[in-house]
Amino acid sequence: MRATVMYAAGDVRIENVPDPRIEEPTDAIIRVVRASICGSDLWPYNDLPQSETGRPMGHEAVGVVEDVGAEVRDVKRGDLVVMPFAFSDGTCAFCNAGLYTACVHVGFFDGYGVSAAQAEAVRVPYADGTLYPVPASEDDALLPSLLTLSDVMGTGHHAAVTAKVAPGKKVAVVGDGAVGLCGVVAAKRLGAEQIIIMGRHADRIALAREFGATDVVAERGEEAVERVKELTGGHGAHSVLECVGTGDAMRTAVEIARPGGSVGRVGVPHYEAIPAAEPAFFGNITVGGGPAPARAYIDDLLPDVLAGRIEPGRVFDRTVALDEVPDGYRAMSDREALKVMVNPS
Amino acid sequence: MRATVMYAAGDVRIENVPDPRIEEPTDAIIRVVRASICGSDLWPYNDLPQSETGRPMGHEAVGVVEDVGAEVRDVKRGDLVVMPFAFSDGTCAFCNAGLYTACVHVGFFDGYGVSAAQAEAVRVPYADGTLYPVPASEDDALLPSLLTLSDVMGTGHHAAVTAKVAPGKKVAVVGDGAVGLCGVVAAKRLGAEQIIIMGRHADRIALAREFGATDVVAERGEEAVERVKELTGGHGAHSVLECVGTGDAMRTAVEIARPGGSVGRVGVPHYEAIPAAEPAFFGNITVGGGPAPARAYIDDLLPDVLAGRIEPGRVFDRTVALDEVPDGYRAMSDREALKVMVNPS
Repeated sequence: MRATVMYAAGDVRIENVPDPRIEEPTDAIIRVVRASICGSDLWPYNDLPQSETGRPMGHEAVGVVEDVGAEVRDVKRGDLVVMPFAFSDGTCAFCNAGLYTACVHVGFFDGYGVSAAQAEAVRVPYADGTLYPVPASEDDALLPSLLTLSDVMGTGHHAAVTAKVAPGKKVAVVGDGAVGLCGVVAAKRLGAEQIIIMGRHADRIALAREFGATDVVAERGEEAVERVKELTGGHGAHSVLECVGTGDAMRTAVEIARPGGSVGRVGVPHYEAIPAAEPAFFGNITVGGGPAPARAYIDDLLPDVLAGRIEPGRVFDRTVALDEVPDGYRAMSDREALKVMVNPS
Repeated sequence: MRATVMYAAGDVRIENVPDPRIEEPTDAIIRVVRASICGSDLWPYNDLPQSETGRPMGHEAVGVVEDVGAEVRDVKRGDLVVMPFAFSDGTCAFCNAGLYTACVHVGFFDGYGVSAAQAEAVRVPYADGTLYPVPASEDDALLPSLLTLSDVMGTGHHAAVTAKVAPGKKVAVVGDGAVGLCGVVAAKRLGAEQIIIMGRHADRIALAREFGATDVVAERGEEAVERVKELTGGHGAHSVLECVGTGDAMRTAVEIARPGGSVGRVGVPHYEAIPAAEPAFFGNITVGGGPAPARAYIDDLLPDVLAGRIEPGRVFDRTVALDEVPDGYRAMSDREALKVMVNPS
């Protein structure tokens, strides 16, 4: 089959690789109906050291189950399934607690030596604990929104949940990428009274407003902090969604939180320590978040997607064939595209 | 009156200063029945730059109300009151939310230019919002435990609350100082299944065990992390109480937390950034805490103190007269005393 392999920063290739096959009795093979490029894929696109073997790419997908191992019970051939970005056994204490990304058997699809999603097919370990069958068809208009449940919408939702968004709360979202925009969707859905989007890309801000953002802060650093405080009655936001992953973004997130407020961070941290330890302490500000248990959140989010109450699939502004995936990376890296969907068929 | 003033690191003096008097109609004057030396007083005792004016010391007290301003309604002359370490108006949005230490009028007793507690009397701003009358007498055997409600027990409780201690949880307490020991009391009171105290002072560990600690970890650094994981089934503690305030202690706290777990930090941070940002992220570990809203917690803790169900006053292992306060500092700094109570009468 054809699959996406990254060999170095900026070096993304579509190659013929062996077809994935059942290796463990708990595996399934899915044919990829739609995959996507994640903002986190841009980190290796910018800094992956060169290698001979390359790294298979892609961890977001919707697919159709083509084969299952002997011990797979809940997932069946022909099911249309959402494939969350992490696989999980579905039975350990962490899965039972809803924290699938801390599963004792957790793994990520695009690590070295495992199957990945920007491809024609994927081998999915722990199929029953990982895949989520959805009542839709391959040509459903909801496919883009269903695809977001594999990562970006679940991640925006995790930012909102760990930032303790609730009815009546003032919310700030740091970052206007696809995760930030899904954070706006999540905050609106959870009843936020005010949603401040922090960013400066006109098209993304426009979409944020359609998703429910009430205010926009284009400033950065200290000016941004002052502006958010002005907009929130002087004290800052109850809930801050950190959707970038840089030290600067994290510092801003802490500084715009109201005393007693919470920061939910979902941007993969590119900093060694969480800045502003003293202001966070004296403000009794809580910092939470991490890799979203996307699998767990599908229960909550799917009904709203199916009913059209939320439309996170609108973050996709470009669809490419598999051969065009390298250009999809370039377009996202150049901020020419917000988020790229991949149609391998 | 006589009061404690610190002029430089190690230079603590008892001096004659003007008697405090009502300055605002919301003030009260209390005669100090018992004060205490706080672990946080040892930071300036070690690093306060020399000054001509000096800094009044002491923020923990139980006293008797001697005078009240014209607008004080709830607190009356003759009341025995707990004086929390921060004053608060009792009426703002933050006080109403129970976060008295984020009051819009918050202040600390031992800042420059305000009244402090290691003295014969204290001027208390916002008396109604600050002081908590208790049904006890000046010679009550419960006086030491009541005194802990002004700070150290409330702070240990805050660590436990922000670390989300609940029935059945595995808890680790970083630090065997008076706050850590009160954290053990709090964790036990909140139903923890396992309480690991991390420290190496034999007398303090013995008291921790009497307070409910089930396990002791004397190791430090990586060895301590391994030991806590062994003791908790391999995954770490659900709830970690960080009761020290150094970067090393904070790193240990994050590293011993179980995925999905919480760290409640109450040690005043002597670090600029919270270490271990990546492990905390990938473990979905929440870091919370800050200055305890001691006032709010008295509602919860007082009945247990009055009924003798908790005895946090046992952290005091020395009582000194006002003239002996400088030696009290020395004894705590030298780890000769765990916590020193001051009887100014």
